Amino acid sequence: MSDTEQTGSAGLPGIVVTGGSGRMGQMLIRLLLESTQARLVGVLERSGHDWVGRDIGEAMGGAPVGIVVSDDAVETIARAQAVIDFTSPAATVAFAELTAQARAVHVIGTTGMEAGDLARLSAAARHAPIIRAGNMSLGVNLLVGLTRKVAAALGEDWDIEVVESHHRHKVDAPSGTALMLGEAAAEGRGARLDDLRTAAREGITGARPEGSIGFSAIRGGDVVGEHDVIFAADGERLVLRHLATDRAIFARGAIRAALWGQDKGPGEYDMSDVLGLND
Amino acid sequence: MSDTEQTGSAGLPGIVVTGGSGRMGQMLIRLLLESTQARLVGVLERSGHDWVGRDIGEAMGGAPVGIVVSDDAVETIARAQAVIDFTSPAATVAFAELTAQARAVHVIGTTGMEAGDLARLSAAARHAPIIRAGNMSLGVNLLVGLTRKVAAALGEDWDIEVVESHHRHKVDAPSGTALMLGEAAAEGRGARLDDLRTAAREGITGARPEGSIGFSAIRGGDVVGEHDVIFAADGERLVLRHLATDRAIFARGAIRAALWGQDKGPGEYDMSDVLGLND
Amino acid sequence: MSDTEQTGSAGLPGIVVTGGSGRMGQMLIRLLLESTQARLVGVLERSGHDWVGRDIGEAMGGAPVGIVVSDDAVETIARAQAVIDFTSPAATVAFAELTAQARAVHVIGTTGMEAGDLARLSAAARHAPIIRAGNMSLGVNLLVGLTRKVAAALGEDWDIEVVESHHRHKVDAPSGTALMLGEAAAEGRGARLDDLRTAAREGITGARPEGSIGFSAIRGGDVVGEHDVIFAADGERLVLRHLATDRAIFARGAIRAALWGQDKGPGEYDMSDVLGLND
Amino acid sequence: MSDTEQTGSAGLPGIVVTGGSGRMGQMLIRLLLESTQARLVGVLERSGHDWVGRDIGEAMGGAPVGIVVSDDAVETIARAQAVIDFTSPAATVAFAELTAQARAVHVIGTTGMEAGDLARLSAAARHAPIIRAGNMSLGVNLLVGLTRKVAAALGEDWDIEVVESHHRHKVDAPSGTALMLGEAAAEGRGARLDDLRTAAREGITGARPEGSIGFSAIRGGDVVGEHDVIFAADGERLVLRHLATDRAIFARGAIRAALWGQDKGPGEYDMSDVLGLND
Repeated sequence: MSDTEQTGSAGLPGIVVTGGSGRMGQMLIRLLLESTQARLVGVLERSGHDWVGRDIGEAMGGAPVGIVVSDDAVETIARAQAVIDFTSPAATVAFAELTAQARAVHVIGTTGMEAGDLARLSAAARHAPIIRAGNMSLGVNLLVGLTRKVAAALGEDWDIEVVESHHRHKVDAPSGTALMLGEAAAEGRGARLDDLRTAAREGITGARPEGSIGFSAIRGGDVVGEHDVIFAADGERLVLRHLATDRAIFARGAIRAALWGQDKGPGEYDMSDVLGLND
Repeated sequence: MSDTEQTGSAGLPGIVVTGGSGRMGQMLIRLLLESTQARLVGVLERSGHDWVGRDIGEAMGGAPVGIVVSDDAVETIARAQAVIDFTSPAATVAFAELTAQARAVHVIGTTGMEAGDLARLSAAARHAPIIRAGNMSLGVNLLVGLTRKVAAALGEDWDIEVVESHHRHKVDAPSGTALMLGEAAAEGRGARLDDLRTAAREGITGARPEGSIGFSAIRGGDVVGEHDVIFAADGERLVLRHLATDRAIFARGAIRAALWGQDKGPGEYDMSDVLGLND
Repeated sequence: MSDTEQTGSAGLPGIVVTGGSGRMGQMLIRLLLESTQARLVGVLERSGHDWVGRDIGEAMGGAPVGIVVSDDAVETIARAQAVIDFTSPAATVAFAELTAQARAVHVIGTTGMEAGDLARLSAAARHAPIIRAGNMSLGVNLLVGLTRKVAAALGEDWDIEVVESHHRHKVDAPSGTALMLGEAAAEGRGARLDDLRTAAREGITGARPEGSIGFSAIRGGDVVGEHDVIFAADGERLVLRHLATDRAIFARGAIRAALWGQDKGPGEYDMSDVLGLND
Repeated sequence: MSDTEQTGSAGLPGIVVTGGSGRMGQMLIRLLLESTQARLVGVLERSGHDWVGRDIGEAMGGAPVGIVVSDDAVETIARAQAVIDFTSPAATVAFAELTAQARAVHVIGTTGMEAGDLARLSAAARHAPIIRAGNMSLGVNLLVGLTRKVAAALGEDWDIEVVESHHRHKVDAPSGTALMLGEAAAEGRGARLDDLRTAAREGITGARPEGSIGFSAIRGGDVVGEHDVIFAADGERLVLRHLATDRAIFARGAIRAALWGQDKGPGEYDMSDVLGLND
């Protein structure tokens, strides 16, 4: 770390990034190197990766920044006030135990966790805060909470539709986030999405079933992700819309979560806690 | 007809409305009674209908306007410079012959015509102008022409999606207008829609097929009709959108067509002729 | 009242509409005559009005409905479980006292109240519930609450913009509802709108002041009213949008308020109470 | 140039990029290095610039690509089939003469040209094609043409509004592109924008002047650029919308122009020629 950085950022929470060579890892590192609220104190990669032993700034194609990529999770995590982790379930579970030992905040964006993994995370969360979310964007998480609230406030004469747009390479529909929004809407109505969800419309569909939740998936170009939750009644509509235009928002959300967790006790949290939506 | 109207509107094209008690008929009559560019000179209903013989203003629940609803098409159409007709194929074919004899413009919004009906319309169009369209809204017809043009100007790296929203009672998807837009897009690319159209997306769809045209149908509330044609490339999108908020636009389009046809020769026209989109 | 209505609706809350000949009055009456949750039990107009003494159905140009327009507020309100009132401040204050005596709910959409009027309403609200709002649309009121909440949840790195569209006849900008939304956003940030509001942009404006709230007013066609509250950060945006397409929503909101108030104690309420947004 | 590239791309038009170290220059270079339709054959920078003499791949922080940045315009341009140029008026005028001598296509995105500069460009265009545009995005240029056409097709009962959104750092309003769209709309109506343009709305504005064109400027976040041209009539709206989400579109438009120009004769062209909008 340079003298300047030591002087300017010594009091800021120190953050370790796992999977530092990945797309999310590099984005997190870039944002942390520019941050005035947190400082990067370590970067992890798996043993045998090219980048291990190199300065992370140089490895990313720029100037050196004084932090060497390590494969020693024990030593690196011991220096952290928070670990931000978008890797694989197996790696995340191992990091969770080390992070708990360090009494540091573990921010987890890793997906595909199974029941056994989640049980081990819960065990780790008895010692330190774990913040986990399928989508780290502040906006999307806020949208989920708003959707639940609005669905609860409005009667069934307000038809609910979820419309999402994504790039042409996306292979499934509707998006995971669209389903998360649909679930929040169903919860707001005291129901389960499986009971309310209607299939994509094609041909003679008949009139819209009362109380149902519809989904539409638009695909084209390089759209990062857009989600609309439409509440449509006679004579008026309320639309809650999120537009993502840069994948960096997922990294920014993770950093915000790491900062938020600094003064929290052990336990499992999600982004709605970070946003204060559960208050 | 009142004295005032004779004085103020005597030089305006005289228009006959068929099916005067229907939703479109009444809307046309109301607009024509207020028009400064055309004047209502007759209203037709089928023999035996309650309204035949009554003043049309009174029949519609208001003050008398001096025009009596008639079931005598021969006599009524003889007075017309134009006939506006949203009825049934059988009635429309009969009116077409009378209108051609009167050398008047026949504006046809009737749907469900079959080949035999169309042949008889073509025969009538040898004597007078016939303007026929599935959707009389100026905006929608303009949108169809723009869609064809844009699809032709942009390469296949621009993905085309048609998204439409309609009220909760609509029983089919996509809307007829959405399909008309999809056909225009396919034409612009020198192809047939059947070869490019993809089904509504649900589950594991795989990546978007290059050159395909996708459709999404949103249903809810009392939305009159909204259509988006999206052209999505890397880094930019062009969206052509039409919003209908009042069904009166279909009546206004028909009146505009009737006026446009006043100085046209015999032949078959559609709304893109009226709008000058074929120039 | 017809036999059918007596049988089917005798247990429903009885509602009196004041100013029955006005645009809002007639809309309320039409909706109440079709309602399965409330029934119309009286219509008031000022003494000397043409409609007093006539059947309200006939006065509105339709079939008789068995309810005669009255100018006797004392007798009429005595029969009400709720009074819905879009009139003038002076009339509303007088109705408030009679409604309180009847221990009925008073729903007030009247605008332009001054301090003295409000004091008299407060006095009446000691005896029965009064529900008052500048905009009775459920959607708009929900939007106001959501705006406050989102502004509080998101930091100042989310720029706030309010964009509204109205018909070409509207003479002021931004709309009252846009300002109400701006105030809610400012409140969410613990500030006053006057301190954050920026003027409409024109010419060399300089960069956007941090923390400011901007307004844009679009005018055209016959747009009933559209409001967007945009929260824009780097890489993502959250948009809360309300579209009004039919003025009947204001009447429906008033009826919902009347029903909501049926089991409430004396006091002053607004639409956010009705929607449960203050829980 | 690598062997692979020589094999694969030898027949493709060779393109020289001026101002290679700038934001647009680097974007052009990256796109050309990946292009299957054109190949990069030279990069120019001004004498004395750090990058002169270095491999352009390395100078941009990556692997070497076999092309050295040069300050010798005469020698470099002599090898080009096209020159893409986003520099300054003085540099552009000089490049125009060399490009004309090489009988190559000159694509110019430089802004701020004055009358004298334009005269010299015209002189150069007597020998080779020059394609010049203030905005090289295909979508925006298409939008300009569509706006002119729609404004001409629709009567004055369609109110025209231009609404644009840009990032929080933008210092002027409305955007240059918004004004270009407004001018196209005015032209479509046979008028000058100065005669139709209304100021941003604030306070008591009175009703919308008939035939006027309104502008709204939304500012926030890092929005690259969004433009809506709204045509609003009673009961319907037509909206032409362009969304830019990546500045690379300006570079892609320039490359497309360079390819389009390969078989064109001398003369001055703009992006509407490239798009075939003038046919």
